[in-house]
Amino acid sequence: MGFPLPPGSTIGILGGGQLGRMLGLAAARLGLDAVVLTPDEDSPASRVVKRTIVGGYDDAAALEAFAAACDVVTYEFENVPAATVDALNGLGAQVAPGPTALAVAQDRVAEKSFLNGVGAPTVPFMAIDQAADIPAAAKALGHPALLKTRREGYDGKGQVWIERTGGEADAFAAIGGMPAILEARASFVRELSVIAARGRDGEIALYPLSDNHHEGGVLRRTLAPAEVSRATAEQAERIAIQILTGLDYVGVMGVELFELADGRLLVNEIAPRVHNTGHWTQDGAATDQFEQHIRAVAGWPLGPTAALRRVEMLNLLGEEADAWAKLATEPDTRLHLYGKRETVPGRKMGHVNRLRGPV
Amino acid sequence: MGFPLPPGSTIGILGGGQLGRMLGLAAARLGLDAVVLTPDEDSPASRVVKRTIVGGYDDAAALEAFAAACDVVTYEFENVPAATVDALNGLGAQVAPGPTALAVAQDRVAEKSFLNGVGAPTVPFMAIDQAADIPAAAKALGHPALLKTRREGYDGKGQVWIERTGGEADAFAAIGGMPAILEARASFVRELSVIAARGRDGEIALYPLSDNHHEGGVLRRTLAPAEVSRATAEQAERIAIQILTGLDYVGVMGVELFELADGRLLVNEIAPRVHNTGHWTQDGAATDQFEQHIRAVAGWPLGPTAALRRVEMLNLLGEEADAWAKLATEPDTRLHLYGKRETVPGRKMGHVNRLRGPV
Repeated sequence: MGFPLPPGSTIGILGGGQLGRMLGLAAARLGLDAVVLTPDEDSPASRVVKRTIVGGYDDAAALEAFAAACDVVTYEFENVPAATVDALNGLGAQVAPGPTALAVAQDRVAEKSFLNGVGAPTVPFMAIDQAADIPAAAKALGHPALLKTRREGYDGKGQVWIERTGGEADAFAAIGGMPAILEARASFVRELSVIAARGRDGEIALYPLSDNHHEGGVLRRTLAPAEVSRATAEQAERIAIQILTGLDYVGVMGVELFELADGRLLVNEIAPRVHNTGHWTQDGAATDQFEQHIRAVAGWPLGPTAALRRVEMLNLLGEEADAWAKLATEPDTRLHLYGKRETVPGRKMGHVNRLRGPV
Repeated sequence: MGFPLPPGSTIGILGGGQLGRMLGLAAARLGLDAVVLTPDEDSPASRVVKRTIVGGYDDAAALEAFAAACDVVTYEFENVPAATVDALNGLGAQVAPGPTALAVAQDRVAEKSFLNGVGAPTVPFMAIDQAADIPAAAKALGHPALLKTRREGYDGKGQVWIERTGGEADAFAAIGGMPAILEARASFVRELSVIAARGRDGEIALYPLSDNHHEGGVLRRTLAPAEVSRATAEQAERIAIQILTGLDYVGVMGVELFELADGRLLVNEIAPRVHNTGHWTQDGAATDQFEQHIRAVAGWPLGPTAALRRVEMLNLLGEEADAWAKLATEPDTRLHLYGKRETVPGRKMGHVNRLRGPV
């Protein structure tokens, strides 16, 4: 089927979590169907889509059924195995964003190498293949430096600080003894992000910046639009455009940035998918990031990204979501719950967008 | 299960059309599941909910499965058979809005009698059981008078004007020879409506008025908030409150009004469900009517109803929806498509909300 995909077409979503759920809801608004592939028997996304194919991402029969059911395939998490995308492509599926974006996002060394290559600055870094590589790398980058697995790991997992010389073998063991990256410390004053979209025709649309606050490695809240200088906004926009263009990207991407004391921005990491720091767009921007992603992968024109108001997005972690009844009484609070069956401490159960007045 | 229903509870929806679809999407945002009962194998609502039970509204096994699956049951159309609601109640289901609202909405004589009884004015009317009743009734009400079936009929179907004496038997035959109502002509200058909600605790929330334009008996567009005097708004609010209270209503209701040249409002009809003239709330009000209805039937607090901006809602009828690609490029147009498989002339395929500036 050619692009743009007409209403009635089917968007395939790899992954059944809250991002897949909100993508499915956005597709429905546009008259598009969605099919989810997930190993979970009862996932949040499954309950809002036409069909769920329950299977692993390496399940050949499941992938075949999925590819046959979908006019385009996208994903809600960046750790989709490359073999899955290869298999889907082999079955004639159109997967967006493309394999380069996935490969880059899955390997921190490849990611930072790519970023620097397109002129998007990052902290200095060195690849670590064994514990013995760490002392020299740490000397070059300076202590403390952050040791992370090259692959996997999110929300602050799989990383450890190298504070001084000595103990490198323990640190390497602590992250699983896997190929790693050592990153110089970023002395940042603020964490920002830009939610960026690129269409199949190369059209780019960028949202105003998000000002993000993490606790224990997990996003706690986002204020948007972030209060930044025109120069900072332009710097972020330039970086986002370089990344999207460099990847020939199709879809929405979250670009996490460190703002340094001198005003420079470094890219922390990129997520080739809709992003938690973009949830404010649901109640604060002209087009929400989920619809924007669906528009992009379906080959539709991108929607406008202007902020309609200031929003404070708060994640509801674990039993914080139990306050739903009180939150539902707050006139300026928009409640978004994910339908997760089990409350686990720290688990993202939902979020609220609090309307904070005009932009 | 007690009210308010916690997230993870299941809302049952009778009917699989666009209103059921948008109710399902709203329930999902609040972390609630939805199950649809519809005779259609592939309905618009089915594709966005956890489960569809395919069966007729008189199918005992289907109703049993439906009642067992749902914590509360609601509906997207007012012609749900009373026997269906009785059966569901007998199976222990909680149906909202309740049977009185349905009974009143299904019979134009009962409806107008109820309305006048609670002090909500309507045009003068008389019940017509046979063609022979028409001449005297028409004489009392004046020509022309509008002959309508008492039951069924919507979007201008099942009605005929009695222009003069003579031909009454043909007119009665034309509407099917069924029990009917004869209504005096309402010399209205404008068609307005109020989307009204009432919670399980009796809390009432009213949206600003809608200014509605019909063509051939079908809603073409709504402007909201309608430009009305404070006196008109208060009159509409008083009427809506009388109706909601009189029915001990739970849910969202559409109250259609005629505005007369002298400023008086008459109730045209009431719809015990979310309403086409309330679609503007999706992009123009603090809480959309679909979420409001879900909140009400689930026993949640109602959401705020303030208008955030002026909106022009346009229905996309038949092949008008084929313009989706162009509509998607318009920056102030929010597109809502229903996922209907077949384009039929005049069929409601979707709508757009055009943002028309601040209130």
